Amino acid sequence: MIRKVVFIGAGNVATSLSKALIDAGFEVAQIFSRTKESAEALAMYLKTSYTTEKNKIAEADLYICSVKDDAIKDALSGINFNNKIVVHTSGSSEMDILKPFTSHYGVLYPMQTFTIGKNVDWSQVPIFIEANSNNTTNELMLFAKAISPIVTAADSKRRKSLHIAAVLVCNFTNHLYAMADRLLKENNLEFKTMLPLITETVEKIKVISPKAAQTGPASRHDMKIVNDHLSLLSGNDHKIYELISKAIQDEQL
Amino acid sequence: MIRKVVFIGAGNVATSLSKALIDAGFEVAQIFSRTKESAEALAMYLKTSYTTEKNKIAEADLYICSVKDDAIKDALSGINFNNKIVVHTSGSSEMDILKPFTSHYGVLYPMQTFTIGKNVDWSQVPIFIEANSNNTTNELMLFAKAISPIVTAADSKRRKSLHIAAVLVCNFTNHLYAMADRLLKENNLEFKTMLPLITETVEKIKVISPKAAQTGPASRHDMKIVNDHLSLLSGNDHKIYELISKAIQDEQL
Repeated sequence: MIRKVVFIGAGNVATSLSKALIDAGFEVAQIFSRTKESAEALAMYLKTSYTTEKNKIAEADLYICSVKDDAIKDALSGINFNNKIVVHTSGSSEMDILKPFTSHYGVLYPMQTFTIGKNVDWSQVPIFIEANSNNTTNELMLFAKAISPIVTAADSKRRKSLHIAAVLVCNFTNHLYAMADRLLKENNLEFKTMLPLITETVEKIKVISPKAAQTGPASRHDMKIVNDHLSLLSGNDHKIYELISKAIQDEQL
Repeated sequence: MIRKVVFIGAGNVATSLSKALIDAGFEVAQIFSRTKESAEALAMYLKTSYTTEKNKIAEADLYICSVKDDAIKDALSGINFNNKIVVHTSGSSEMDILKPFTSHYGVLYPMQTFTIGKNVDWSQVPIFIEANSNNTTNELMLFAKAISPIVTAADSKRRKSLHIAAVLVCNFTNHLYAMADRLLKENNLEFKTMLPLITETVEKIKVISPKAAQTGPASRHDMKIVNDHLSLLSGNDHKIYELISKAIQDEQL
């Protein structure tokens, strides 16, 4: 039974997840990070302790590694986990990246976007679980269900598909919002004007498929408008407008 | 005072707007469309009459042309408007495209996405108004306010900026939803799993700017993941992933 947790990493995911765990009654015993500032900031927020030294990492039932995928191996190497469970929270890294560090390992992938300063309702966060044994899978499922009702087992291949889809519907749509924000500001218009349209775009795909919901100049092949808009855009904006317009038309074929 | 309206066109915008006008107490006297099927379908839905013949168009206080921008001139030429007010509903067409047809003309641009089969709450639709005289502007403002509380005067240049932004945050984000839907289906996963993430992405930009809200592999320069995802995508999907990842990184500079 997992009761005591230590975090390796102190970024957006660690901050939101550690807080949710404390709210659910778990003990977050320690935060480890290579940078004192981030370790200390999160530890203060949680009212717990921190360390920047690998040989001073506390004992726990579960070690949660939330660092960027590039950094997972470096972050974990040199730590003695006493064969306790170690998980990472990445959508795309293989589970087996953890094999060198313990005999009990897995993945706890919360499919949500986390930014420090914006609280997330964890009852709405789908969590995908994978582990190297049935026993550890069961322990992690039970653990995850204490913070979210939407917990699913998913192997690395399915998790990677989910992660690509998540990048598209979250990170990339957010970039389109940022582009719109910038273009509107250049014309002394406010981004908040777009909120009803953004909301309705999301409401539509709850009731009809995104393909059936597609509207706009590209989908009705109104090339006068498409070319007119292109003439007002440059750089990446121009390339993105051109490519997605083409993709919308290709998708209809 | 505008009381009686005739629609030129019977597509998504005409369908939603004509219904909203009837609900607000206006008379929609007739639907004109070149294709009998669409004119008849909308007229039946509204319980009004229709015509496909330009010399049989009914008298009205206001003629609303909702056809694709390419088709506006053709749709209007040959109709006798008796110098009554004619508007189009396009985000991008110039107002002056209507000059040959009457001395009272303007634009009524509802910035929303309309699809037959999905009702829109018109109290949440920003409407942008432009006209060739103050008198007609005032008439149209009064008219528009009867169906939406969010009515703003905007000249053609500002309206075009709004339209480009609308294409980005609605049509293009919807294409990313359609891409995710297709990729998930290929891996036997359901698109509805993404809804909490999609909703949270929108909730975030209500409280922090899209630029500050940006997360994901590209924004944290996790090139291992970016390249891993790229290796699983082909065609337009590959190009879109590559281009937007680059744009997210360029935007941070």
